[in-house]
Amino acid sequence: MNSTNDPTLESFVDVDSQSHFPIQNLPYGLANPGDGDSFLCSAIGDYVVNLAALEAAGHFDGPHLEGAEVFQEQTLNKFMGLGRDAWTEARQTISRLLSADEATLRDDDSLRSKVLIPMDEVEMQLPVDIGDYTDFYSSEQHATNVGSMFRDPENALKPNWKHLPVGYHGRASSVVISGTDLHRPQGQILPPDSDDTPIFSACKLCDFELEMGFLTGPGNDVGSPIPIDEADEHIFGLTLVNDWSARDIQKWEYQPLGPFLAKNWATTVSPWIVTLDALEPFRISGPEQDPEPLPYLDTDENWTFDINLDVFLQGKDMDEAHKICASNAKNLYWNVAQQLAHQTITGCNIRPGDLYASGTISGPEKSSYGSMLELSWKGTDPIEFPNGDERTFLEDGDEVTMTGYAETDGYTIGFGEVSGKILPAKELDV
Amino acid sequence: MNSTNDPTLESFVDVDSQSHFPIQNLPYGLANPGDGDSFLCSAIGDYVVNLAALEAAGHFDGPHLEGAEVFQEQTLNKFMGLGRDAWTEARQTISRLLSADEATLRDDDSLRSKVLIPMDEVEMQLPVDIGDYTDFYSSEQHATNVGSMFRDPENALKPNWKHLPVGYHGRASSVVISGTDLHRPQGQILPPDSDDTPIFSACKLCDFELEMGFLTGPGNDVGSPIPIDEADEHIFGLTLVNDWSARDIQKWEYQPLGPFLAKNWATTVSPWIVTLDALEPFRISGPEQDPEPLPYLDTDENWTFDINLDVFLQGKDMDEAHKICASNAKNLYWNVAQQLAHQTITGCNIRPGDLYASGTISGPEKSSYGSMLELSWKGTDPIEFPNGDERTFLEDGDEVTMTGYAETDGYTIGFGEVSGKILPAKELDV
Repeated sequence: MNSTNDPTLESFVDVDSQSHFPIQNLPYGLANPGDGDSFLCSAIGDYVVNLAALEAAGHFDGPHLEGAEVFQEQTLNKFMGLGRDAWTEARQTISRLLSADEATLRDDDSLRSKVLIPMDEVEMQLPVDIGDYTDFYSSEQHATNVGSMFRDPENALKPNWKHLPVGYHGRASSVVISGTDLHRPQGQILPPDSDDTPIFSACKLCDFELEMGFLTGPGNDVGSPIPIDEADEHIFGLTLVNDWSARDIQKWEYQPLGPFLAKNWATTVSPWIVTLDALEPFRISGPEQDPEPLPYLDTDENWTFDINLDVFLQGKDMDEAHKICASNAKNLYWNVAQQLAHQTITGCNIRPGDLYASGTISGPEKSSYGSMLELSWKGTDPIEFPNGDERTFLEDGDEVTMTGYAETDGYTIGFGEVSGKILPAKELDV
Repeated sequence: MNSTNDPTLESFVDVDSQSHFPIQNLPYGLANPGDGDSFLCSAIGDYVVNLAALEAAGHFDGPHLEGAEVFQEQTLNKFMGLGRDAWTEARQTISRLLSADEATLRDDDSLRSKVLIPMDEVEMQLPVDIGDYTDFYSSEQHATNVGSMFRDPENALKPNWKHLPVGYHGRASSVVISGTDLHRPQGQILPPDSDDTPIFSACKLCDFELEMGFLTGPGNDVGSPIPIDEADEHIFGLTLVNDWSARDIQKWEYQPLGPFLAKNWATTVSPWIVTLDALEPFRISGPEQDPEPLPYLDTDENWTFDINLDVFLQGKDMDEAHKICASNAKNLYWNVAQQLAHQTITGCNIRPGDLYASGTISGPEKSSYGSMLELSWKGTDPIEFPNGDERTFLEDGDEVTMTGYAETDGYTIGFGEVSGKILPAKELDV
């Protein structure tokens, strides 16, 4: 156990026992105060921690960060590119400065007023310049559900599924931050009475996908795969991802080269990146893998995370958000180290700030299915809400909110939330 | 006809009649002189034109470029983001400064020695920070060939193919510049005697794909599609693309989400981006499209380009490179404006520097097929070379070179070439 994860560690800042942001978390984000420049930050209780101000005051003075000026940036990419030693040093510094028995920040009113900003006074922004975005398909239950609905329940998984983490490249430009509302996408769909003549229409089968993502730090050269046992040198941290999906657009477009417009209209991420260091206590052994993966995908390390994942939906006629899914990141067959090793095995290079999402994380129970497609079983079994509303797919005005949190004795490590509302389709001049 | 395209226009720099770089071309690139900083440049005859030096000397003094400092950058992204008026102004300025009857550069030995650098003294580098990379599948002959080989000759095209430009997101990080040699990729392939148990192996079916790509300038906001009739405000220019492909890796991995590792080990682009302005004389009407595209894909403008495309192969036992394919960019069913309109129709945003490749450009004759897969018809019909060598797919030591050029009365507009050699698979510690 790293000292920064010590459950008895306390901050001089009051932290509610239910807070996502105890001193053991220390995630990274980018905050916009409204009346000044955005700044890279961490979080403690109800405050963001201005890392640019701490750096400017000379408090990142260890061997890996002194003079590096990484927190004066408007993205985390430069910091992420420094690698694990710098990440650990930053975490230790922030942890020390926020701890109850360290006077530096606690007793300096002037510095404290610059560094600790109430969270409700800032707007969080996308903290990373995402170079490339990959979306995997790593939950066995999800792949089985989809294969059963659209293909054959007896052969729901394609022959390759248990041999490699199936994935595809997504669109980095349209990754947006939690809180971004989105117009219902429009495009080509097949009307019910046609097999081959599409119409132009607003998407009728609008969906979310509950996912987690990891972001990378130091990259590799083209042609030099990253061995799986070096994954921890390259994985910076995890975030929540809502991979919005237009099912009807996808169904028509995806043969033979995979999902394209059905996915690229937006992908929403949570404002906070939680580091591997903070998640150390929540690493568990993964599911048994049979057949045994090829050696480049084989690892003895625990790369599965025990992180609770909930999805809430609030329609415009509902008084509150209702939980419609309770899943867990441990419901993934392929883990992040395997995904990274696979991504690079043919020689593909990665870069600091790249995003790799898990694919929809569905568990074995229906209540843990991570998309409307699965929850309503392709629209055949609507979800019922207390006000009498029913849903098969998302309607205009529906707000989807996902949260992620890991619990251990005495504290909770949270990701905050990732939310977004579906607005009506825009009138288009096309 | 724009004055910068006037066939009678001449430069004070001698330009061979076969040169790719007459004064009517003026493409953009990034040159590394070896003994100093890389600089953004254009080309004239056998020289690169140092645009950073021209800008520093105050020669970009029009309303759209004065003070913009776009050519001091190490990528073209900032310039590309300025938009068409700035692009046209830059082209007119460069054309005027290089013209035979303008003294500014012609008669200033000091300035000329800084601005005109022999092309063989510099190494060209990737001139764009590519944010996202899309690969389309827009040649009917190519899609028909592939569909015939792997599926059903009677139903070679999927039902969606003539309704939309099928495409998928590629990997931006592994786009490399011409001249980058590449190790044969390794990964999972199915051995001939198995339907479902892969082995780890070097790729045995290594291939090139002859493509062209366009790059975008000003972007749009998430949720705001780009109307097809505004495409010329967003398309900066065209480049050559070799979309290297590992066919055996692709065959095993691509179901159901499309190509992934088979493509992301490298994509090579030519050093020069040729602008829409330079290509104006080579725009022709495209193929008749039946069925008629939906309105968002419908345009009366000529967006098909008459550009000759050749592929050469030189094996390690061959004395010279041999032409194995002669195709043309006009062999595309879907044009660049349609590709751009489709890319954004669901609300996906684009950014300056994004790359959109055409997919393999195969013409109707076998000699115009743009990949080894098609030229050797899946390996059943080897290509024979004068030294007795045969090829079905690429062997170690094979160098593939593509060129592109458009000819009109009196001059040739060229892209230079895109080349790369396949090196033996690396010994991996995985």
